[in-house]
Order: sequence, then structure tokens, then C-alpha cells
Amino acid sequence: MSHTLGTEIRLNDPFVTAVERVRSALKSEGFGVLTEVDLRATFKEKLGADFRPFIMLGACNPPLALRALTAAPEVGLLLPCNVTIESDDAGGSVVRIVDPRILLAAARLAEIPQLREIADDAGARLARVATDLRRKVQHAA
Amino acid sequence: MSHTLGTEIRLNDPFVTAVERVRSALKSEGFGVLTEVDLRATFKEKLGADFRPFIMLGACNPPLALRALTAAPEVGLLLPCNVTIESDDAGGSVVRIVDPRILLAAARLAEIPQLREIADDAGARLARVATDLRRKVQHAA
Repeated sequence: MSHTLGTEIRLNDPFVTAVERVRSALKSEGFGVLTEVDLRATFKEKLGADFRPFIMLGACNPPLALRALTAAPEVGLLLPCNVTIESDDAGGSVVRIVDPRILLAAARLAEIPQLREIADDAGARLARVATDLRRKVQHAA
Repeated sequence: MSHTLGTEIRLNDPFVTAVERVRSALKSEGFGVLTEVDLRATFKEKLGADFRPFIMLGACNPPLALRALTAAPEVGLLLPCNVTIESDDAGGSVVRIVDPRILLAAARLAEIPQLREIADDAGARLARVATDLRRKVQHAA
């Protein structure tokens, strides 16, 4: 179902390695990690609940973000671009990368040409991040 | 245009006061602030660009987030619920609060009844946050 909101990638890498690979792939495409939420730690601390390793990274390409917010400050409700990594039962990891074009369409902001162009740019970069991560899977296989 | 993605509230309070009011109103409805991005500082540091005071708070109600992620881990691409505060030209502030039901619909996840119920709950809480902030405007007027 995640394909409706972005891309899902299954990696053989264990969680910690997967997180580092994602960070590195994001950096290559000009995305810094502005926010980071360790959901497992949050649920343990706030609720005493056990949860699998699950991290949310907020990826931001500052030049694109500045252009987008200048065009429409409402875009702040959609930023940064989320990337999640969780461990699976087999010792591997699942990476999910949001598609900013889908969020823009949901916000009915896609009709602003400048914004659509920026989301296309960010979306293309994130698609290359996904390609990069998938290529590493094939090399490892 | 922001009404398509959430709620917009104009406050007479200056930026710093508005941020504190928003934090307090979120706390009253069970939302902690998991992430915080000072966009003005980010744009200055990364791009050397001047931008008005603009902060993005990532609000999270842990019990609701745990239930949502248990129902569908793809929800991680939509969390936390963004609230933005920026200063306006008149010395006041603009607050925007996302509506999680709109994001859920965009993700085509709204057909999962359990998720819809959780988003309704979070959305109702955030609507009360907006009401609370608006009431303070009227008291001040």
C-alpha cells in the first residue's frame, strides 16, 4: 500500500547499516537530515511499550525548501520529506521514501507551476536515492 | 489556500509568544513536540539567506501514533503532525495546523477503518488546539 504515498525498498542490511546507507544516499542528492525521531525509544519512554527499531528521518534540500516556502508558506505543513527505516523479522530492513508530488497534489498546491517544478526536482532526487539503495541490494545479492 | 491542507490562524501575538501558546495548546490535547525546525536559522546557516522567523513543530500524540503505526507502518511517512508558526509583517504571527485526515486520504490509507478512526481522533484534538488559539485572540481583542 505504501506505493500510493512513496517508494518501499527492502534491504538485506540490518537496521543500523540501513540507516547509514539511507543517510549517505540522501546526502549524495543534497538532502540533509533536519529531524530524526527514534520511534522505538519514544514509545518506550512515553508509553512503556515495546516496538521494533523504527526511525523517521526528515530530509530537506535547503535550496528547494527555500524556493518552495517562498512560493507558498503552506508548504511548511508538508516538510521535511519523510524517510522511514524499520527492521523486519528476517534481520533486514524496510525503507520508505515519501513522494513529495503526492503530498503536493493532496494539498491542492500542485496547480502552482513553480511549486510543481520544485516537487518534481525533489521527487526526482528521492527517486535516485531509491535507485541507489536498490542497486546496493543487487550488488550484495 | 492553506485550508485545503489544514487550518490557518492569525494571532496578534509576536512570534515568540505565539510559539509558546501553540506548545501549550498542543500539550493540553496530549501532543508532545517530537521535532522542531527553525527554518530561519537553517536557511541562514546552509544558504546564507535571510528569512522571516518560521518554525516547524512536529506534534505527536504517542498513543495515537503507536496505534496508527501498528495498523499500517506506511503512516510513518505522514508523521508527526506539522504545526508551523511564522511572523507576519504587522508584528503578529500566522499559525498553520495540518489536518491528518487530509494526509490520510492522500495516502489512500483512509479506507482502513482503524486508521480513519485514529486520524479522526488526532484531527479533532488539533481542531481543539485551533479553537483554543482563536479564543485567546478574542480575549485579547
